[in-house]
Amino acid sequence: MKKVITFGEVLLRLSTPEYLRFSQSSNFNADYGGSELNVATSLVQFGMQAEFVTRIPDNDIGLSVLSQIKKLDVGTDFIVKGGDRLAIYFLEKGAAMRGSKVVYDRAFSSFSTLKKGMINWEEVFEDAGWFHWSGITAGISQDTADVCLEAIEKANELGLTISTDFNYRQNLWNYGKSPGEIMEKMVALCDVVLAGDYASQQYFNIVPEGNSEADFHLSLCKKLSERFPKAKKIAITNRVDSSASQNTWSAILYDGKNILTSKTYEINYIVDRIGAGDSFMGALIYGLHHFDDQKTLEFAVAASCLKHTIYGDANLATVAEVEKLMNGDGSGRVVR
Amino acid sequence: MKKVITFGEVLLRLSTPEYLRFSQSSNFNADYGGSELNVATSLVQFGMQAEFVTRIPDNDIGLSVLSQIKKLDVGTDFIVKGGDRLAIYFLEKGAAMRGSKVVYDRAFSSFSTLKKGMINWEEVFEDAGWFHWSGITAGISQDTADVCLEAIEKANELGLTISTDFNYRQNLWNYGKSPGEIMEKMVALCDVVLAGDYASQQYFNIVPEGNSEADFHLSLCKKLSERFPKAKKIAITNRVDSSASQNTWSAILYDGKNILTSKTYEINYIVDRIGAGDSFMGALIYGLHHFDDQKTLEFAVAASCLKHTIYGDANLATVAEVEKLMNGDGSGRVVR
Amino acid sequence: MKKVITFGEVLLRLSTPEYLRFSQSSNFNADYGGSELNVATSLVQFGMQAEFVTRIPDNDIGLSVLSQIKKLDVGTDFIVKGGDRLAIYFLEKGAAMRGSKVVYDRAFSSFSTLKKGMINWEEVFEDAGWFHWSGITAGISQDTADVCLEAIEKANELGLTISTDFNYRQNLWNYGKSPGEIMEKMVALCDVVLAGDYASQQYFNIVPEGNSEADFHLSLCKKLSERFPKAKKIAITNRVDSSASQNTWSAILYDGKNILTSKTYEINYIVDRIGAGDSFMGALIYGLHHFDDQKTLEFAVAASCLKHTIYGDANLATVAEVEKLMNGDGSGRVVR
Amino acid sequence: MKKVITFGEVLLRLSTPEYLRFSQSSNFNADYGGSELNVATSLVQFGMQAEFVTRIPDNDIGLSVLSQIKKLDVGTDFIVKGGDRLAIYFLEKGAAMRGSKVVYDRAFSSFSTLKKGMINWEEVFEDAGWFHWSGITAGISQDTADVCLEAIEKANELGLTISTDFNYRQNLWNYGKSPGEIMEKMVALCDVVLAGDYASQQYFNIVPEGNSEADFHLSLCKKLSERFPKAKKIAITNRVDSSASQNTWSAILYDGKNILTSKTYEINYIVDRIGAGDSFMGALIYGLHHFDDQKTLEFAVAASCLKHTIYGDANLATVAEVEKLMNGDGSGRVVR
Amino acid sequence: MKKVITFGEVLLRLSTPEYLRFSQSSNFNADYGGSELNVATSLVQFGMQAEFVTRIPDNDIGLSVLSQIKKLDVGTDFIVKGGDRLAIYFLEKGAAMRGSKVVYDRAFSSFSTLKKGMINWEEVFEDAGWFHWSGITAGISQDTADVCLEAIEKANELGLTISTDFNYRQNLWNYGKSPGEIMEKMVALCDVVLAGDYASQQYFNIVPEGNSEADFHLSLCKKLSERFPKAKKIAITNRVDSSASQNTWSAILYDGKNILTSKTYEINYIVDRIGAGDSFMGALIYGLHHFDDQKTLEFAVAASCLKHTIYGDANLATVAEVEKLMNGDGSGRVVR
Amino acid sequence: MKKVITFGEVLLRLSTPEYLRFSQSSNFNADYGGSELNVATSLVQFGMQAEFVTRIPDNDIGLSVLSQIKKLDVGTDFIVKGGDRLAIYFLEKGAAMRGSKVVYDRAFSSFSTLKKGMINWEEVFEDAGWFHWSGITAGISQDTADVCLEAIEKANELGLTISTDFNYRQNLWNYGKSPGEIMEKMVALCDVVLAGDYASQQYFNIVPEGNSEADFHLSLCKKLSERFPKAKKIAITNRVDSSASQNTWSAILYDGKNILTSKTYEINYIVDRIGAGDSFMGALIYGLHHFDDQKTLEFAVAASCLKHTIYGDANLATVAEVEKLMNGDGSGRVVR
Repeated sequence: MKKVITFGEVLLRLSTPEYLRFSQSSNFNADYGGSELNVATSLVQFGMQAEFVTRIPDNDIGLSVLSQIKKLDVGTDFIVKGGDRLAIYFLEKGAAMRGSKVVYDRAFSSFSTLKKGMINWEEVFEDAGWFHWSGITAGISQDTADVCLEAIEKANELGLTISTDFNYRQNLWNYGKSPGEIMEKMVALCDVVLAGDYASQQYFNIVPEGNSEADFHLSLCKKLSERFPKAKKIAITNRVDSSASQNTWSAILYDGKNILTSKTYEINYIVDRIGAGDSFMGALIYGLHHFDDQKTLEFAVAASCLKHTIYGDANLATVAEVEKLMNGDGSGRVVR
Repeated sequence: MKKVITFGEVLLRLSTPEYLRFSQSSNFNADYGGSELNVATSLVQFGMQAEFVTRIPDNDIGLSVLSQIKKLDVGTDFIVKGGDRLAIYFLEKGAAMRGSKVVYDRAFSSFSTLKKGMINWEEVFEDAGWFHWSGITAGISQDTADVCLEAIEKANELGLTISTDFNYRQNLWNYGKSPGEIMEKMVALCDVVLAGDYASQQYFNIVPEGNSEADFHLSLCKKLSERFPKAKKIAITNRVDSSASQNTWSAILYDGKNILTSKTYEINYIVDRIGAGDSFMGALIYGLHHFDDQKTLEFAVAASCLKHTIYGDANLATVAEVEKLMNGDGSGRVVR
Repeated sequence: MKKVITFGEVLLRLSTPEYLRFSQSSNFNADYGGSELNVATSLVQFGMQAEFVTRIPDNDIGLSVLSQIKKLDVGTDFIVKGGDRLAIYFLEKGAAMRGSKVVYDRAFSSFSTLKKGMINWEEVFEDAGWFHWSGITAGISQDTADVCLEAIEKANELGLTISTDFNYRQNLWNYGKSPGEIMEKMVALCDVVLAGDYASQQYFNIVPEGNSEADFHLSLCKKLSERFPKAKKIAITNRVDSSASQNTWSAILYDGKNILTSKTYEINYIVDRIGAGDSFMGALIYGLHHFDDQKTLEFAVAASCLKHTIYGDANLATVAEVEKLMNGDGSGRVVR
Repeated sequence: MKKVITFGEVLLRLSTPEYLRFSQSSNFNADYGGSELNVATSLVQFGMQAEFVTRIPDNDIGLSVLSQIKKLDVGTDFIVKGGDRLAIYFLEKGAAMRGSKVVYDRAFSSFSTLKKGMINWEEVFEDAGWFHWSGITAGISQDTADVCLEAIEKANELGLTISTDFNYRQNLWNYGKSPGEIMEKMVALCDVVLAGDYASQQYFNIVPEGNSEADFHLSLCKKLSERFPKAKKIAITNRVDSSASQNTWSAILYDGKNILTSKTYEINYIVDRIGAGDSFMGALIYGLHHFDDQKTLEFAVAASCLKHTIYGDANLATVAEVEKLMNGDGSGRVVR
Repeated sequence: MKKVITFGEVLLRLSTPEYLRFSQSSNFNADYGGSELNVATSLVQFGMQAEFVTRIPDNDIGLSVLSQIKKLDVGTDFIVKGGDRLAIYFLEKGAAMRGSKVVYDRAFSSFSTLKKGMINWEEVFEDAGWFHWSGITAGISQDTADVCLEAIEKANELGLTISTDFNYRQNLWNYGKSPGEIMEKMVALCDVVLAGDYASQQYFNIVPEGNSEADFHLSLCKKLSERFPKAKKIAITNRVDSSASQNTWSAILYDGKNILTSKTYEINYIVDRIGAGDSFMGALIYGLHHFDDQKTLEFAVAASCLKHTIYGDANLATVAEVEKLMNGDGSGRVVR
Repeated sequence: MKKVITFGEVLLRLSTPEYLRFSQSSNFNADYGGSELNVATSLVQFGMQAEFVTRIPDNDIGLSVLSQIKKLDVGTDFIVKGGDRLAIYFLEKGAAMRGSKVVYDRAFSSFSTLKKGMINWEEVFEDAGWFHWSGITAGISQDTADVCLEAIEKANELGLTISTDFNYRQNLWNYGKSPGEIMEKMVALCDVVLAGDYASQQYFNIVPEGNSEADFHLSLCKKLSERFPKAKKIAITNRVDSSASQNTWSAILYDGKNILTSKTYEINYIVDRIGAGDSFMGALIYGLHHFDDQKTLEFAVAASCLKHTIYGDANLATVAEVEKLMNGDGSGRVVR
């Protein structure tokens, strides 16, 4: 099986311990994460090979993130060094009615000043079969959008499968271009799309219709499918937030004709929901390499369901654990 | 808007980490709290000005609490120093069927030996529009009851609005007077009362009647209203404890004629319920300065609901967060 | 009241903090536990006298466990020293759909190489009225099974009441004997049995029948009762795992004729479920010394319910706390 | 060998972690200590039997200290329960030029309100051969001084050896009596005295003379010996503080005729010097039971030297460790 | 006494716990500091009034630093909000031969993009008698240098005393101007200067001469004095680093004619040396308000000596503690 | 440059926090180490390629150590899985006169039951230029000694340079063979030997002679050189322990003719001395690849000196840091 390449920014994640508010804490837990790294981590956890491509500063903080990625066993051969700083996000963990809070300090990061030509995509894509990127990368700066397009075009030229996660972030897209202008060309070359209602509207002014939730999702998928005919698979996750501690979680998968619907899970209590979408994406890519569509969907939902019980950005669940849950054992019994 | 004065004792709060029992822990988290300080903290969080009046020992522990109060931005200009020790309470946090446990070590504290004349109330009430005290202060010692009455009478004379929280504590009231004897004169001068069934009976032998909960509460409010005609607003919070980790929470507000009823919230999971009543009181005072009665009630319930998700005695929620919940968003979604 | 002797292995319990996976944690909490020690701890918590008999290595780790057992006030007079190492178990705490994970490192322990004659059972049983052991001890090694049988026969000879917990562990029983071969003689001398469906099948090929759960349990009890006529009391706990954070918990007690059924508790949220069965067993022994059968059963279920809210292997609940819950107060209100 | 009884107050010790100042820390380590408990702990560590007699409150904090003393294996049979609160001391650990800081919150403690007759000294002294008390107990309140004298007189009557540590604390002795008035009768009945220059002056107006340090100490010992002829052994420890992290440590022992002088140790770096004097006293009592005077003195100095490397109030060094240091191995080599 | 204004950047300080290297730690302690804030904190600790002027982002991290400064009781009335991010520095604490390591992430901070006119200096300097700035502020960006000059000129015009600390940082001064070009005009208006050999050379090409250390320092002071005639007091601290854990520390003060020399302190062991120079500066300003020159110098050296024993950027020593050390008591004895 | 292969056991290191004794701590830090892994880690830190060969259990604890080794960037391609358990060592950190204490729980480990043939040495040594082993591996079991000899012979056959560290551990060598019997053949094939006085006597009855330390070392080297003529380089480290917190450190290197002597370092204060010898060995191998003998020796001493300032088993110092110290800068100045 050929390896998967993911491309994006890695951030230092500084979270307050327990449920402390920012102003209460004199201590941060220090971890690392980022949407596309999380996808790569999931794939490696499942036994596939993945390389994460990014740019980090050439200082001790950059070296720490590098050793952390190595610990996860994700490939680091094409990580380039340079620029000023590593992006940071601060996390205050919520509970019940109080949602978690994320404060970004990602401006001026090494990744945001990456330029075309700094990464030799030809070399990166050798032995690779799949390329994954997300809307976050496109929204960071004109530079990262340019490099991302450069990568997508090269991947397309070399015949790799290309996947994207819309991942719309309102605090990005500040560099003077409308999201649609940038994303249109990039999504047009993708084979697999993890979309979302709000993102579809923000990016492409696509507004789905329908009276039932099922109709609504079908409408969205059809409209996306018409707009982006290369996209053979379109997935949408569906979270119902009763509170920060309790959610239901499910997803759908559209193959151009039919919509498949997953089981719905009630998750209580939630340890850490950051990275749930990324863990879905990672499991989806794994599934599409190994299973039929229905099993792929169930695998991706179960995997991302487990992510909610795991601290940190990355999903550290194994294939065996995901399959156990898929097959109906969500009992949380002690494993001895 | 004129500032609010609250008066009471501040305690060092020593809590076992996580869910450890007292005998298991070799470590305490050190925080500070106290009913009336918590009210002041809520007001300051909401953007109002509040002064906390108390007496603390003139040693390093007293100085630590002082710097902590300053951090919260509550006024400390009228805190007097002297006496032997700071009161302490030990807290063991419960879960599910095991309730949290509080052990008080508050006897002989600096506050309990405060004497009349030590605080220049005339000076304290300059520029102030509201005075808040609670039944805890009255129950600590004859001295604190005397000083509290001194303050209430001066506040009344100067035309401040006066509020009280009944806050009956069975482990207090050991100084030889019956609670009713002391509280009668003090409550008689209050404009706003946060009452409770059990406290009303302990203090004033008031036993409400009624077949439904609504009738029962109305009866209690009417009886209190007759006994204390100056009290224009009477509020009662209503907690249903399914377990230490899961509660429902609501409240009522009586304006002398009608009872207003709030939304009911299901809180799961609870981070820290200590100080919930105080956070309600603080938000009630804020509401009465800014909103009509119904909105005031909803604001106070939503604010105190959020308190359950916040570690420590004090409610560190902001007006924006409370209004978001009031307006129906208790989804606990990640705020990025 | 005569003292209770329990016999088994004590393990060093190394658990990751919070909900960290093994690979995430650079830190373990260090506690001690073991099924039969947990039973003794429960009894001592309830005010009875209990001695724990085991073998520990004569090194600093052995001395640490000794001082820990002394702290719990469990008798240590008959603990013998020698052998190579203390058994260890590593614990990764689960949440929601992800169950906790236990990795045993118990091979070659001091206890597993205990030999007949090393413990003077005559001396141990002086002043004792009850002996408790469990299937874990029988499954560790031929040696521990031999010593356990030696103890059971001596206890029987001296007229002590004997209790057992089936406690089938699939990762044990590796020393070349079938469980049934070993357990048959040992259980035959017991007066009180804490059984289980799966264990009964693994040990004795007993498969209960019945259409309803009630019939099923009755059938199991009858079959066990016929096979082991000395067993006057047979108990079975009943856990329904909705998730690692949320369970229902109840039990039955059979006296040779009738099945008594306990209340059912919904536990949410679970702090630590390790040792729940042991806390049931300890409370059962306490109950049989103090109450009638129905009250004994309710006491044991309430006690083990509270265990789920307590960190560590041992149930640190008191009789007063258990009776409060038995009498219907599971509200988790703050105790001041 | 008969057991040793020590009598005094146990305090909850709340220390800031690392080197944090009081105002910096939101967390306290919780331990327990007290001069006379520390002496008992040393004796038990060395293999002797010791009972600690005190009074603690009958609440969760009192029970926690009880379980902690049991863990140390010190006898608790004569600890009585009652009164309001456990004494507390807060500790801020110093380094280099900044000394550690202790804030006492010991007023109104359960121990300070102990009354004559509450402890049955006849029963306590059965099987005992030695009684130890210190000047702290005498200085707390008239009540504790009375009970201490009651104990000393009974011990004297029953022929026990009696030892005392002067332990002058300037923040005590507030109950209206001069220290000398109280201490005179008590010290007069003692056989072994751990004295000090400053304390001797404060208690008895004894001012030693001499040009050299040796003369000075000899003069002090002679004057004490004349005043208290029953005292057969008088010891004085000698600390030279270069800084909070670095000290030299030695001692002398006077037998009525000659002064013995110990080796001098340079201690760098100091982990925790609280309780050093108590660890000397405990080792002195142990030595007087086992060795000649010179070896006793060297044992006591080496033991208390090791205390400086051990966290907490109590000396957890063993006889073997002390003898290793006495015999010249202070290399701090890794013991594998 | 009129208040002191200090102006500069406040940084989030993220330090690894204990002595962990960056790559070893999954946890940071979160504190705040910055050269000029540290000066203000010292002054407030000593009982003077000080305002800290800076610019912080209007987000949760900015608000946390604000509440932290309030806790220190430093005035925050003129702190302006805006811009992108709070500057950060990462700290790895060294020991013995391994020096501590600082990684800055201060580019693009809110402070660095402060513009002229954003701060109303007229208002700031009302009621103020002293203005302090440092070379760090001048080196951050053209903007901060411009605002700093604006402040200095206004302070000069209003007759405030002006002090500076050269504080040369090689990783700053990247905005295209030579340090000398910028600093010349700014230092020319200063009355009190904390200089240094290396900084004097980097900024002004001043190379002192002399065979002895005394001659060398005198030469430097004379040359600075000639170049900047308004500077009535020039101070230089003198650190001899034997290792990261052990230093000697002293200073000199020049008044235009004579050089005064302080006592020399040997500091062992060092808790935290970050901010030592700032604590010297703060104590110097305090001294110049209260003492003659020699006492001022001794006060400043003793204060900064104590800083080495205190965790964090800020010196939390009091006047009494500093005077105790000045007067020769560096024994580090326990203060009870 | 060809890669280095090291072969040995990796252990889970469980250390008490701060300076807590085993019986005081309810918490262990969890790290990993082992003499030969430490050597490999040093080499990788210095930029060389190294593979660590061992056997670990196929469970979560084994997988955790694997991910930890990957984080260090040491090659893991030839680590085999199987067996029962990972070896453990417990560490209590000493200070001043109290040495650190190590308790081993390494019996029955996966590594100790490794058999000949399980590792394909031919494959391992492809592309390798150096093989390193130590006396620990030889002392664990007959099996590990057999496999080690198998490796040495194959390495010798393939022309690799072979190095060994005598590393005599008295708690090993329990499998019935005398150390000399086993070690003779193994050392005979080595090119580089890190020896020691005590080990040389224990292994080979070699007792050096001489009046001065220099003569003594020369004598030892000559005797070793005669016995093992293949050994071209013999090194000995020289530690003088003043206390657990303070040591001097130096070494010598013998090339068959001359003895080279290194600088001597005074280390104060020591963070963690475990692994100092291994860090010397690693740096020696690095040096012999890059420098002449004198520089190699100085590099190895400086590197291992820095190890004393770094927490954990492994030396995380870089070449630049080591060279800075070699070149005389041990000032421990802050690196900004």
